[in-house]
Amino acid sequence: MSNDTICAISTAPGQGAIAIVRISGNKAFSVCNTVFEAKNKAHSVSTQQSHTVSFGNIVNAAHETVDEVLLTIFRAPHSYTGEDSVEISCHGSSFVQQQILQLLIGNGCRMAQAGEFTQRAFLNGKMDLSQAEAVADLIAAESAAAHKLAINQLKGGFSEELNRLRTELLNFTSLIELELDFSEEEVEFADRTQLNNFIAHIEQVTLQLITSFSVGNAVKNGIPVAIVGETNVGKSTLLNRLLNEERAIVSDIHGTTRDSIEEVMTLGGVQFRFIDTAGIRDTRDKIESLGIERTYHKIDLATIVLPVLDATRPIEELERFIVDITKKTADKQRIFILNKIDGITVQKREELATLPIPAEDIRCYLSAKFGQGYDLLQHALVKAANIPTIGSGDVIVTNARHYEALKMSHEAILRVINGLQQGLSGEFLSQDIREAIYYLGLITGGSISNDEVLGNIFAKFCIGK
Amino acid sequence: MSNDTICAISTAPGQGAIAIVRISGNKAFSVCNTVFEAKNKAHSVSTQQSHTVSFGNIVNAAHETVDEVLLTIFRAPHSYTGEDSVEISCHGSSFVQQQILQLLIGNGCRMAQAGEFTQRAFLNGKMDLSQAEAVADLIAAESAAAHKLAINQLKGGFSEELNRLRTELLNFTSLIELELDFSEEEVEFADRTQLNNFIAHIEQVTLQLITSFSVGNAVKNGIPVAIVGETNVGKSTLLNRLLNEERAIVSDIHGTTRDSIEEVMTLGGVQFRFIDTAGIRDTRDKIESLGIERTYHKIDLATIVLPVLDATRPIEELERFIVDITKKTADKQRIFILNKIDGITVQKREELATLPIPAEDIRCYLSAKFGQGYDLLQHALVKAANIPTIGSGDVIVTNARHYEALKMSHEAILRVINGLQQGLSGEFLSQDIREAIYYLGLITGGSISNDEVLGNIFAKFCIGK
Repeated sequence: MSNDTICAISTAPGQGAIAIVRISGNKAFSVCNTVFEAKNKAHSVSTQQSHTVSFGNIVNAAHETVDEVLLTIFRAPHSYTGEDSVEISCHGSSFVQQQILQLLIGNGCRMAQAGEFTQRAFLNGKMDLSQAEAVADLIAAESAAAHKLAINQLKGGFSEELNRLRTELLNFTSLIELELDFSEEEVEFADRTQLNNFIAHIEQVTLQLITSFSVGNAVKNGIPVAIVGETNVGKSTLLNRLLNEERAIVSDIHGTTRDSIEEVMTLGGVQFRFIDTAGIRDTRDKIESLGIERTYHKIDLATIVLPVLDATRPIEELERFIVDITKKTADKQRIFILNKIDGITVQKREELATLPIPAEDIRCYLSAKFGQGYDLLQHALVKAANIPTIGSGDVIVTNARHYEALKMSHEAILRVINGLQQGLSGEFLSQDIREAIYYLGLITGGSISNDEVLGNIFAKFCIGK
Repeated sequence: MSNDTICAISTAPGQGAIAIVRISGNKAFSVCNTVFEAKNKAHSVSTQQSHTVSFGNIVNAAHETVDEVLLTIFRAPHSYTGEDSVEISCHGSSFVQQQILQLLIGNGCRMAQAGEFTQRAFLNGKMDLSQAEAVADLIAAESAAAHKLAINQLKGGFSEELNRLRTELLNFTSLIELELDFSEEEVEFADRTQLNNFIAHIEQVTLQLITSFSVGNAVKNGIPVAIVGETNVGKSTLLNRLLNEERAIVSDIHGTTRDSIEEVMTLGGVQFRFIDTAGIRDTRDKIESLGIERTYHKIDLATIVLPVLDATRPIEELERFIVDITKKTADKQRIFILNKIDGITVQKREELATLPIPAEDIRCYLSAKFGQGYDLLQHALVKAANIPTIGSGDVIVTNARHYEALKMSHEAILRVINGLQQGLSGEFLSQDIREAIYYLGLITGGSISNDEVLGNIFAKFCIGK
């Protein structure tokens, strides 16, 4: 681990009222002693107590004031990174932020790499690797569910579960190895039934964690939804309506627009990722077969499909569409949208009830024109997403890297179970157990001695964290 | 002044490593007592000392953790606003920021209006109005010069100058009023020559401040530059080249793009604002008269004009353009760009030297293709901008509101001088002096008793400042 002193802007890029420049490392205090002058001349960084704030100026080599700032110091090991750290709260202009960074770099700091503060926190034992990864997840969380999972993981719930598993596996090993020591006397020291039950429990817990990834992944990355239908049935209006309502909520609160993620939205605390089915929307060449062929692949990626129908069209046409789409989305959750409900007669409304929509599917009557039915659609989406309520103690795997490691660990455990059944000697079994432990250690970081692996994990972080 | 407790996100919008939520007002501590739980159970917001940081959780009504945060408290009057204040340093996800804001609002805070923290700082006497306005200028500053002016103003240099003027005017008044008291005895108590010299000095200082606005305005808002020329001479390439070089510098340092202000750039610490002369670029209908007619108005707005010529074209054509543009930009600084210098012969190069470019104008030989000559152009632009080096003690007016107030004050002072010359009685003079003082007070805020005026000034701030 390098011992140099790093610095970075830790707040969001761009102009704000204030910004935070973060510094961590051996020279954090001495660098700040050079560039910071407390208003109260009796104070200085060297005498400042940990976890206190001092008001003063950042000054350059020519003793000109760069900014009036608040400077907070954290003495090692009582800091985020575990090292001597400083946070400079400056005015939020990009220019000021740059000037301060350049001054720090000119005095011996270097720019932090992405995630380097958190990486140091991990290397200094302030958190394990899965907690460090939870920091990045927390920052990226855009829904209540994703946020809750990240907070649980950050607080160490997942780590505890893994440590419990690890302890059980270690206990298991010692039993096996005890047997090993006495193997020359051909004594089966450990009770094989007890061992069987023990490892079966471990296998079950591991499998539960692996299975939880389907929920965790959906929560973290959003549930893929495909809106399909013929042209002019109101697909775009539907999507825009949903997006706009969500946008209004967001902008009421902190005044930002979310243009860059136009097709992602959070409804009822769950994030949905709407898959662009422009292929269907824009082409009419294969309209008789619903034009779906070109977007098969996209529908395949979806968990939920929203077939949209124009309720004013002839019943026979609607029936054809329904039969076709039902066949082609056999394994999907479906919410049938019967749009333009404001433009139909009472008789037509009764006919719609007879449409061959499978009983297990949800149907929503909607009026894009008058905004009717959107509430029900939102509820239907959340219901179809089928995300269980996440309690603050629940342990759910959200990270693909953890998922892969758990699968490897689980395979090793299955080999142990198999070996026990075949009456293999402890020597063979203990090798597989150690492998199972090794893979668990990849998640918490205990088994990782490779800088490159760590680098890849932290490269996904933002700068300044 | 309202005594309610306000809160806002003070860091730039969007996702960062960390974000700051700011709270100020009577209930700042009691609200935080409800939503914050220190990790060290012995600690609480009520016992926490001013200017110290506490680590803990923000928890909602259901006692679920919303985020792990650092909470810094500032006890009145030792805070930015002069009120009890708290800064919550949370994880920088938009979701977390919103959740915390909502929690604070649910517990009795209200969303701060733009600039409301600084407005409270002003109302509580922590700074005068011109210093408060310097905060907004500092945040908006994008060049070294604009930054320096804002810092000087924030540190109170301008306020001191105004206070000196005010004191001199008050002294002057007391002399005049002394005379007034004795007027029945028809004694001219104050020495009129002394009074003349006194007010003449005041007038001179005021005029200097007014004059400084031309520099201050150019520094703050950027120097308007028009790039003009026929089509295909390389205007866009020139502009893009300049912009790209600037962009590279910016993105090296803090990784943001500046797409929204594509035509503003900082060179040599000075900001330039390039005026779009698309009218010339895109139309060929009046090419013989340089197509300039349609963009006259835009050229009029520029301080510096950059006529761009294609050096490979016939000398006669270039001469015609030069004569025409020189006539039409008589009062402007001009930098003639002779582009495509890489594609000409030695003989042509010699002929270019004879072009009728006025001696006082700058000429730059440029090769857009090979990037030659850009350094010289940058130097030429900075030279043409003619911004004096700004020392840390210099007082320069940058604010149009201050400029207007100074002009009104100056007019009143001129009336005093005029009155003295005409031998008017002290009664008449002192009325004008009071007016001069009143207008100075509009700048520092002393004369403003109108909430609406204040509201308009602070509305230009960002939220959270």
